[in-house]
Amino acid sequence: MNSYATPTSISAIPTFSNIQGAAERIAPYIHSTPVLTSQFFNELTGAEIYFKCENFQKVGAFKIRGATNAVLSLREDECQHGVATHSSGNHAQAVALAARNRGIKAYIVMPSNAPVVKINAVKGYGGEIIFCEPTLAARESTLQTVVDNTNAAVIHPYDDYRVITGQATAALELLQDYPRIEVLIAPVGGGGLLSGTALAAHYVAPQTTVLAAEPEGANDAYQSFQAGKLIPLTQANTIADGLRTSLGEKNFPIIQQYVRAVLTVNDEEIIAAMRYVWERMKIIIEPSCAVPVAAAIRYPEHIRGKHVGIILTGGNVDLENLPF
Amino acid sequence: MNSYATPTSISAIPTFSNIQGAAERIAPYIHSTPVLTSQFFNELTGAEIYFKCENFQKVGAFKIRGATNAVLSLREDECQHGVATHSSGNHAQAVALAARNRGIKAYIVMPSNAPVVKINAVKGYGGEIIFCEPTLAARESTLQTVVDNTNAAVIHPYDDYRVITGQATAALELLQDYPRIEVLIAPVGGGGLLSGTALAAHYVAPQTTVLAAEPEGANDAYQSFQAGKLIPLTQANTIADGLRTSLGEKNFPIIQQYVRAVLTVNDEEIIAAMRYVWERMKIIIEPSCAVPVAAAIRYPEHIRGKHVGIILTGGNVDLENLPF
Repeated sequence: MNSYATPTSISAIPTFSNIQGAAERIAPYIHSTPVLTSQFFNELTGAEIYFKCENFQKVGAFKIRGATNAVLSLREDECQHGVATHSSGNHAQAVALAARNRGIKAYIVMPSNAPVVKINAVKGYGGEIIFCEPTLAARESTLQTVVDNTNAAVIHPYDDYRVITGQATAALELLQDYPRIEVLIAPVGGGGLLSGTALAAHYVAPQTTVLAAEPEGANDAYQSFQAGKLIPLTQANTIADGLRTSLGEKNFPIIQQYVRAVLTVNDEEIIAAMRYVWERMKIIIEPSCAVPVAAAIRYPEHIRGKHVGIILTGGNVDLENLPF
Repeated sequence: MNSYATPTSISAIPTFSNIQGAAERIAPYIHSTPVLTSQFFNELTGAEIYFKCENFQKVGAFKIRGATNAVLSLREDECQHGVATHSSGNHAQAVALAARNRGIKAYIVMPSNAPVVKINAVKGYGGEIIFCEPTLAARESTLQTVVDNTNAAVIHPYDDYRVITGQATAALELLQDYPRIEVLIAPVGGGGLLSGTALAAHYVAPQTTVLAAEPEGANDAYQSFQAGKLIPLTQANTIADGLRTSLGEKNFPIIQQYVRAVLTVNDEEIIAAMRYVWERMKIIIEPSCAVPVAAAIRYPEHIRGKHVGIILTGGNVDLENLPF
């Protein structure tokens, strides 16, 4: 996506001041989400877990934080022609809503096989949808055409410092509300949330251990972390559809520096964790969101006896198509 | 159930002092549940709705309030032989947990076709289960035998002032937290929650309008309310399994006096409301719990422009057997 015009903005790793600025900037447009606890999960893991409920966030996922910060960070002249992105998931809705909130156009390139519920959500937020073949190549070339035709500013879902800065505000809220937290666990796909979480912890509570949780079927972050260099994801095979993306170039160095370990879990563990959360906590989370919960259950040695924050990333699930 | 020995306790309509006492008595054993709002439901109904989330309560339902108050209200000599009840639902778990918290035995008569998940939950709380044929007659006669053999004190699920007083604490919390509430909606089955809610509103915020919501397929409260006399439920045909019970003798006069109207909804509306809550609020509620939500959607004229409290009663759903 580097061929697109990138509006000027943060051009280096976000500072604490950037994150504080993002928190103020997006505050009118997002929920300060609640934190839940569960005796069941505490007994299961031997830890004291604080669940940051971004599944209750606007558009049903943390993605609205990064998208809103990115859209609001644009200068007037940078966004007079609107914004554009390609996404079949939560980022699509987030950019559409963020653009509507700023009063500008949003062009969303979506694969022709995107779920109707997500298409309708983007339309509901006033986004203009451009359909394409369901391949990454088609998505990128279609987005390029849209940008060529419209001069819209591209909002990348994760490989963008403004997006990372926005996502960091979830952990910022959690750590400010619960300063006793000693371990933070976030899922990793493209790395937008994880890199933001790691930065927030570094600035606000540097003694905090940040752990990543990743599906075994899309473990490029694990492999990259072990190899010490970015190893792109060539094939994804996991139910965690939000994490089937390759780690971003801007995200990886931050993760390398500030994340302690990448813990992987398989789909069976993800589904079991998702079901536990539904049954015991009575809240709806999507498969990608269950990944750090599954990691907490599989690797209790990392968290036993500790105060642990887990970011529950989203709750957008197709109720017609549940894995249980 | 009037043939069972009833331990001495509140013998008249609970006073405000009784309800305050119950709130203090049960506080160590229950959650003070959160209140959620939803822009979607506000726009749908034209009201400002405050959802009291008893689906996040211990045992997944408000029932723990009444059961705990009843169990803790017993004198030592009244409960030295334990407590007993019959239930296939949330009251069974509630009595089992309340008894464990007091350190006494609980005998729970359950129909042989009760869901395994509920049987396991009662066992998990240390309750002793006595199975019987799945008829009301068999349940009552089995309970009588249990009481004859054990001298356990019976905790009726709703037709009991101690239980009513305990259930009243949910509305008490809500009204104390949100004094602007002008309308309260609670579902009605046996009437334990509804009569408690009506009393709490009467004492704390007497200008509040209390509405009942009931499934059309078990509308004995509606009929009784219209007729001005208790008309027992002869047949129940509704997905709202928690509301398939006949209004209690102690509950009806309170409801007659302090409830403005009984609003009925059909199963299609109940399922649609349940699905809306799952999809838009990302929380899990059971069909019975969706009944007041369905009433708010069907009868917006009762709530438009008002601050409205809805008690979400429980979230115990069989995920293998969803209505959508």
